Amino acid sequence: MGQDSDATAMRRRLSSEERRAQLIAVGRAEVERTSFESLSTDDVAEAAGISRSLLFHYFPTREDFLLALAADAADELLAITDPEPGLPPRERLRAALEAYVVHVTEHRRTYLSLVRGAAGGGAEMQAVFDRTRGELAARILDGLGAPAGTAPDTLRLMARGYVALAEELTVSWLRDPQLPRQAFLELLEGAAVALVSVVGVTLDAGA
Amino acid sequence: MGQDSDATAMRRRLSSEERRAQLIAVGRAEVERTSFESLSTDDVAEAAGISRSLLFHYFPTREDFLLALAADAADELLAITDPEPGLPPRERLRAALEAYVVHVTEHRRTYLSLVRGAAGGGAEMQAVFDRTRGELAARILDGLGAPAGTAPDTLRLMARGYVALAEELTVSWLRDPQLPRQAFLELLEGAAVALVSVVGVTLDAGA
Repeated sequence: MGQDSDATAMRRRLSSEERRAQLIAVGRAEVERTSFESLSTDDVAEAAGISRSLLFHYFPTREDFLLALAADAADELLAITDPEPGLPPRERLRAALEAYVVHVTEHRRTYLSLVRGAAGGGAEMQAVFDRTRGELAARILDGLGAPAGTAPDTLRLMARGYVALAEELTVSWLRDPQLPRQAFLELLEGAAVALVSVVGVTLDAGA
Repeated sequence: MGQDSDATAMRRRLSSEERRAQLIAVGRAEVERTSFESLSTDDVAEAAGISRSLLFHYFPTREDFLLALAADAADELLAITDPEPGLPPRERLRAALEAYVVHVTEHRRTYLSLVRGAAGGGAEMQAVFDRTRGELAARILDGLGAPAGTAPDTLRLMARGYVALAEELTVSWLRDPQLPRQAFLELLEGAAVALVSVVGVTLDAGA
């Protein structure tokens, strides 16, 4: 009987996690269809085939739900731009930027409404963004063989600055994509190479 | 008598504008003493020697007042970084960046709490920031002899990206000023030169 209870508890816990994952997936699709600010929790509950009150059982407030969606989008962005280990820095950079540009193009509305709209999302939402930007900057330093702890101040500053620049460039480009995707990618890559050269780091042209 | 009324109306209007200007000046000083988020309108009214209700006569809500302070700080930033006309691009850039770095150092709390804290300030506050960033980017293009209307897409993107980068670098540096001011200034200048070179613009070293 003790084992049965454990198994039941286990099933319940998994089911709960799966439900959360389902609601996040439905919410993400809704955000991409409309926008982050105009997301309707009623629509999400309906699309998931559950009651609104059950949604609020998992995410007590609309803000909690938006926060979970933002964290999920941030995790996804970090996952798809994880540089392939073993590649030389310049090729890792290019692979990461290619994956990034494809990703933001495919998740245009999510990216735009998160980066701009979520600025009004309060301290917790800001923390999600700051953490994501910090991790991206740390990854750049890591790719250059100078992890955050050992990198010179100038290089650490430039890595953070580059993340901000890339975000701004991406928002401007997604809003008004005059530039072909490949040219935009080359701009992002060129900016990275140019900025690290300012602080004395050379990225070889690679393959 | 018509003239008298006009003169009275004129006096009243000026007085009202002076009162607004006084409240903004007091508010700006309070922000620099504490922070944007923790600004107390009671303290501002007391420091200005007026009642709280009179303050709310000029600025109906606390948010209106904060918005006026942000707009004032943005105007000031734009005013002090107005490049001297007639200087070659590289020298105009240096003059503007020097004025900028001195300014943000002297208004450290205002700058930090505005840029970061005001992110939660709603759409109107965001509009103040977007307009300021847009004007700074337009000024960079203008300084390069390629006003926004005629600049290539890549150069326009880079100008916007540079403003975002400079803001991020400044926030990071003000929070943790490991780097001497002169070295920080050179970093900002080097980044600008490097980024425009990515899109084929050369800034001569100047005097």
